[in-house]
Formats: sequence, C-alpha cells, structure tokens
Amino acid sequence: MTDAPPEFPARLSEAAASVETLLAEWLGDDVREGEIARPGRLMAAMRHAVLAGGKRLRPFLTMEAAALTGGDSAGARRAGAAIELLHCYSLVHDDLPAMDDDDLRRGRPTVHRAYDEATAILVGDALQTLAFEVLADPATHSDGTTRAALVLGLARASGLGGMVGGQMLDLAAEGRYGIVEPGIAGVRTLQAMKTGALLAFSVEAGAILSSAPAAQRDALSRYGRALGAAFQIADDILDREASAEDLGKATGKDADRGKATLVDLLGLDAARAEAARLLAEALAALAPFGPRAGVLAEAARFAVGRRH
Amino acid sequence: MTDAPPEFPARLSEAAASVETLLAEWLGDDVREGEIARPGRLMAAMRHAVLAGGKRLRPFLTMEAAALTGGDSAGARRAGAAIELLHCYSLVHDDLPAMDDDDLRRGRPTVHRAYDEATAILVGDALQTLAFEVLADPATHSDGTTRAALVLGLARASGLGGMVGGQMLDLAAEGRYGIVEPGIAGVRTLQAMKTGALLAFSVEAGAILSSAPAAQRDALSRYGRALGAAFQIADDILDREASAEDLGKATGKDADRGKATLVDLLGLDAARAEAARLLAEALAALAPFGPRAGVLAEAARFAVGRRH
Repeated sequence: MTDAPPEFPARLSEAAASVETLLAEWLGDDVREGEIARPGRLMAAMRHAVLAGGKRLRPFLTMEAAALTGGDSAGARRAGAAIELLHCYSLVHDDLPAMDDDDLRRGRPTVHRAYDEATAILVGDALQTLAFEVLADPATHSDGTTRAALVLGLARASGLGGMVGGQMLDLAAEGRYGIVEPGIAGVRTLQAMKTGALLAFSVEAGAILSSAPAAQRDALSRYGRALGAAFQIADDILDREASAEDLGKATGKDADRGKATLVDLLGLDAARAEAARLLAEALAALAPFGPRAGVLAEAARFAVGRRH
Repeated sequence: MTDAPPEFPARLSEAAASVETLLAEWLGDDVREGEIARPGRLMAAMRHAVLAGGKRLRPFLTMEAAALTGGDSAGARRAGAAIELLHCYSLVHDDLPAMDDDDLRRGRPTVHRAYDEATAILVGDALQTLAFEVLADPATHSDGTTRAALVLGLARASGLGGMVGGQMLDLAAEGRYGIVEPGIAGVRTLQAMKTGALLAFSVEAGAILSSAPAAQRDALSRYGRALGAAFQIADDILDREASAEDLGKATGKDADRGKATLVDLLGLDAARAEAARLLAEALAALAPFGPRAGVLAEAARFAVGRRH
C-alpha cells in the first residue's frame, strides 16, 4: 500500500468545494419552483446537517465516473450532490437517540442536539426528498429516461433492500431484538447494504449520466462494490488499531455495542488480505479504461491505505 | 350539503381493494431486483404501517384523474399506490414520540409501539424511498420523461416546501420553539403544505400519467388544491363539534396542543362558508370535463359533507 499520489487529493477537494457551493445554493431560504414556503428552522437545520464539511467522496466518484465515460460535468455535479444529500440524511437519522444516539458528528453537535429530535427527523426526511427532486429535475439531465434511471438506482441502493435495510440489520446485530450472530456472510451482507450499495451507486450514476455501454456500466459498478467493501474493512482495521493503541478515545465503538466486524471474525491478517484482494478487484475493473481511470484507481488505493 | 350519491363510495372501495393488493405484493418478504436482502423485521413493520386499512383516498384520486384524462389504469394504480406509501411514511414519522407521540392509529398500535422507535424511523425512511422507486420504475409508465415528472411532482409536494415543511410549521404552531401566532394566512399556508400539496398532487399525477394538455392538468390541480383545503376545514369543524358534544373522547386534539385551526380563527359559520366556497371552486374546476367528472365531484361533496 503506497501513499496516494498527489492527483487524487487535489481532485477530491476540488469536487468537494464545487459540490459545497451547489448544496449551499439549494439549501438557501428563498422559495423555489413548486414550493409553498421554506420554514426557517427547517432550512437552518438542513444546512447544519449538510454544510459541515466532509470528504464528499460520493459526489467525487460520480463526477469522476461521468468524466471517464464522457458525461456532462454539470449534470454529474448535480447528481453527485444529490447522492450526498441522501448520505447526509442517513447520518442525521443514524445519529438519533433511538438509533446510535450520537452527540457529535465531525466535531459539531448532531442535528438533534443542535436543534431537537423532531427537527432532526424532519431534516432527514426532507433531505431524502430533495435528493430525488434533484435527480428528477431536467437541469440534471436533458433525457427523462436517464433521470428516471438515476432515481430508480438511488432508490434501490438506499431503500429497504439497500442502505435502510442495512441499518436495520446493524441494529439487530447489536442484539436489540434478541441474540443475533450474523457470521461472516451476515456481516458482509449488512455492510454491502448499509454502505456498499450507495458507494457503488455513486460510481454507477456517472455511467448512467453518460448513457455508457452496459460493459462500462458493469465495470464501474464492480469497481464501486469492491471499493465500498474495501473501505469498510479499512474502517474496521483502523477502528481496531485505534482502540488497541489508545483506549481512552471514542473508538472501538462497534465492539462496545457488541457488534462483530469482519476484523473480529476473520482476524487482522486475513482482513488485511481481504482488503488487498478487494483493491485488486477494484483496479481490475478499471483496467479496460486504461490510464484515464488513474484518479479512480488512486481513490481505491487511498481507501485501503488511509490512516484516518 | 347532500349525502354522497352511491357511485363514489363504491369506486373508492374498489380502488382501495385494488391498491391494497398491490401494496401487499410490494411489501412481501421476497427479494426483488436491485435489492441485496429484505430484513424480516423491517418488512413486517412496513406491512404493519401500510396494510392497516384506510380510505386510500389519494390512490383513488390518481386513478380517477387518470381515467378522466385517458391514462392507463395499471400505471395509475401503481402511481396512486406509490403516493399512498408516501402518505403512510408521513403518518409513521408524525406518530413518533418526538413528534405527535401517538400510541394508536386506526385503532391499532402505532409502528413505534408495536415495534420500537428505531424500527419506526427506518420504516418511514424506507416507505419514502419505495414511493420514489415505484414512480421511477418503467412498469409505472413506458415514457421516462413522464416517470421523472411524477418523481419531481411527488418530491415537491412532499418535501421541505410541501408536506415536511408543513409538519415543521405545525410543530412550531404548538409553541415548541417559542410563541407563534400564525394567524389566518399562516394556518392556510401550514395546511396547504402539510396536507393540501400531497392531495393536490394525487390528482395531478393522473393528468401527468395521461400527458394531459396543460389546461386539463391545471384544472385538476385547482380541483385538488380546493379539495385539500376543504377537507382540512371539514376536519377542523368535525373536531370542534365532536369536542363540544363529547368532552370525554380523544378529540379536540389540536386545541389541546394550543394549535389554532381556521375554525378558531374564523368562527364556525365563516368556516362552514369557506368550506362551501372551496367546494364550489373544486366543482368549477371540474366543469370543463362534463359529466364524466361526476365521481370526482362526488368526492369533493363527500369531503365537505362527511360526518366522520
């Protein structure tokens, strides 16, 4: 695992800055087409939830995949930002007292702490809706079939058979609803649903925007799934190492909740080997695109090799 | 206000039965295209939330409006059922302890009482996602532009500038965030957002499915808005009369929460006059369709004249 060469971090922060501007524009106080009014408290809380920094990895993936397959960059920026809204909604709801009960997110109070629980529920609800609104808007793509395909893909990645279902399995894995031992296959399914599906769709969305041939779309989807799984294992490894090194910090959270990770189930060495295998899989999926896929390849190397 | 002639109730229950079947089919335990797994607890709780009877007024409106403008009935049934999913999600989240804190809905325990709060949050989230998935699915309409228009319309009606925003204003009107006196204009805005926008879209969706001319679409949208406003005033009148007649029942809830209704602000007589004016407006919007719009006209008369 080498350090990421310079191109990826620069492209990632460029994408983040560009998406941040768009998100701020969407979450302003001025009423837009088809709206009756924008309640001030709701808008302020939505901005708190969304405009809090963050890597913006998902929009970056959409924008890079679109660029690689010849898609329009303005549309990819919008679609990527829509996926980020969806991701932010999931964080707001996951932080709620009834869920993970977190007070802080990226060093700032979570939405239900900065505002209140009812507002946080509504913020998440409205962010999800806005994500679909943006994708269905003609400004995202001139072709209706493409817009509908983006909506369908995001819904499948994030709904009961994807992200939300994964969160349900995650709560069950804490033992809330009786003793559950998901095992290796169960943890893989949980992670593929909870985080993998949306990461994979972030990449695939770029190919949908370009109406890329099925082979390219499939390759990017394979890359996205491998990246998502690798990212999760790297997270688990970091979590394990951090909790071993410094027990005083708020790490090792999954272990605290009694949730088994792949690192627990496979052991650290086998987990590292699996991350390496997933990285190879991600890079192999990119091979047909040649050197133009260099930044996405760097992103995968970075995901596996990162130290924070 | 005459009693509703027989055709409307029969058509409403036919639509309800037909939509119920479809909803049950969508919420089964078998994994479908694009899904990784369907967690059993989540699916059971989603069925609890959705398959609990109910008038299914929104799908009925979509199906009637589509029939009136020449739309395909299978597509209208799917689109109407999708809007019902969206409506059900809003009920599940509105019932949560942090929101209205209701234990019962249609005589059965609410989702967070029958299951738990975390599950109820996820149920609402996944129902919203499923609504958009259904609309974007080619099975709902063969034309992608139509599917994207349905998604865009539903998002605008139900998001921060519509239903969710209305719920935020409603919580504020309880005085949670300081003293608020929304006044007549404020209550109208709140109600147009919280319930009116989605009812109006239920009608408009029928016209979108038929690619009806703009004049027809506008007329149906006017009908829907007037119907939604009339329905809400009729609710407020019923609520006031019920609480005056029988103080022992769980009625007069809005008054308990310190929320002013239009009946409070206008007085009972002026509220009845406004309901009558809205009914006339709804019927006038239907006039260009002639006698074929009879069932929708009956629906409006029923909404204003109902006794429960």
